[in-house]
Amino acid sequence: MYLTQEQLQTYEDNGFVLLPECFSQEEIHKMKVELPVIFSQDTPKRVLEEEGKTVRSVHGVHNTNEIFQSLSRHPQLVKPAMEILGSKVYIYQFKINAKAAFSGDIWEWHQDYIFWRKEDGVPKPQLINALVLLDDMNEFNGPLFIIPGSHKEGMIDVVAQEKRNQSQAKTKDPEWLSSFTAKLKYSLNRDMVADLVLKYGMTSIKASAGSVLLFHSNIVHASPSNISPFDRVVVIVTYNSIENICLPVPNPRPEFLVSRDYQPVDPLLESIL
Amino acid sequence: MYLTQEQLQTYEDNGFVLLPECFSQEEIHKMKVELPVIFSQDTPKRVLEEEGKTVRSVHGVHNTNEIFQSLSRHPQLVKPAMEILGSKVYIYQFKINAKAAFSGDIWEWHQDYIFWRKEDGVPKPQLINALVLLDDMNEFNGPLFIIPGSHKEGMIDVVAQEKRNQSQAKTKDPEWLSSFTAKLKYSLNRDMVADLVLKYGMTSIKASAGSVLLFHSNIVHASPSNISPFDRVVVIVTYNSIENICLPVPNPRPEFLVSRDYQPVDPLLESIL
Repeated sequence: MYLTQEQLQTYEDNGFVLLPECFSQEEIHKMKVELPVIFSQDTPKRVLEEEGKTVRSVHGVHNTNEIFQSLSRHPQLVKPAMEILGSKVYIYQFKINAKAAFSGDIWEWHQDYIFWRKEDGVPKPQLINALVLLDDMNEFNGPLFIIPGSHKEGMIDVVAQEKRNQSQAKTKDPEWLSSFTAKLKYSLNRDMVADLVLKYGMTSIKASAGSVLLFHSNIVHASPSNISPFDRVVVIVTYNSIENICLPVPNPRPEFLVSRDYQPVDPLLESIL
Repeated sequence: MYLTQEQLQTYEDNGFVLLPECFSQEEIHKMKVELPVIFSQDTPKRVLEEEGKTVRSVHGVHNTNEIFQSLSRHPQLVKPAMEILGSKVYIYQFKINAKAAFSGDIWEWHQDYIFWRKEDGVPKPQLINALVLLDDMNEFNGPLFIIPGSHKEGMIDVVAQEKRNQSQAKTKDPEWLSSFTAKLKYSLNRDMVADLVLKYGMTSIKASAGSVLLFHSNIVHASPSNISPFDRVVVIVTYNSIENICLPVPNPRPEFLVSRDYQPVDPLLESIL
């Protein structure tokens, strides 16, 4: 047992569980000092906000940066993931979401799994997100909003939106970009969200840097814009069960978005964090 | 004395004071049923969100709707305004800000008085906003963020932004529109806001429908987008001291934005609310 019975029950009931202060301020600092260089690299792995200036997300950083590689294999993340999914796991997706002070834009209401099913051929929602807070997340800096229990609805099938970004709708933009911009490809419509909130209520995650949020791939979530002077950087490592590997799809997304390296992760015995 | 000594002191120290549940649910209901018709009227008094569909604000409603006229003269608003400003007052501006569920956009960090000084020739910041909540304002629906005590800085002189709205920058748009869109004409820059938050901290207003927030014309405030399923409609009545009437300006804004009827308001003895 890595998580307590109560934590496991919370996860099952609500679709998420918060583990406060898993990482020390020193460990968080080691990660934060890596960010300026990572954010400055103009590669396809980097997604900008719609205004074209601020970094919104960077993908696949665990493959190129040893600090974040260490995080992705850290027992604090891997062991709960294995425990909840009931199997060995591999790293399916790794991203840093910046939600920058004054600039971080919204994430529309969505479930993650529908992207992974429709775009990547993942057979079952047997994946888990481990979100690591590199900054305090408070009521001011665009905290995560969650509809607790909404994972019980299963995958809510929504029609893919056409490419909706006016300023980013350049022909050179890759098709996959609409999974990561402020106008999401598989966002839930307003009536669905209103009905779910009526049924389950709504909550927000407020926690200090170093905390970890584990959340289900079918939980309905969103986050508002960040108009505060406080950055709100998070890392999201998605673990997939090794029993749940991707089926073939016509247009596979790049490896830095969706790994097809199904090698199970062994939790590090010694972290460099 | 209409406000308590403690309330007056809070206003002086923080630049705002919240008066919970001044209006009953029945009174709020009487106002809310008026909104669909008001919001449906395509007039220059109505400002849309940048997407061009959702109502953002409607101005000057107290001149055309008897329920809101009654609100604008209600003793619950007029008496505290007179008490704080230390004189008789007239109605300077009246607006309904909709901040609609799923659509309400941000208000950038700003002080109100700079608009009134630069656009309308108001000599001193001897005005007060009475904000009436027609919906509960909570952490989810784009609550007002305030930098408490920031009114003590006086008017922070910022350079007017050029017309910044791409989608709304049509030649037919009146000059005054940039005082009411998501890209404000006199917004504070990021360094200023960060410094002020460091100095004074930051708070948010969370209160139930029917509450009234009185706030200073130099308080620095903003509000984030509303991605929740909950509307967040507020009415803001701005009272100006009759000793502080507008000096002549080259291009006066329309009467429905800035009244030049300096007739002092007598608080209603009997409200129709």
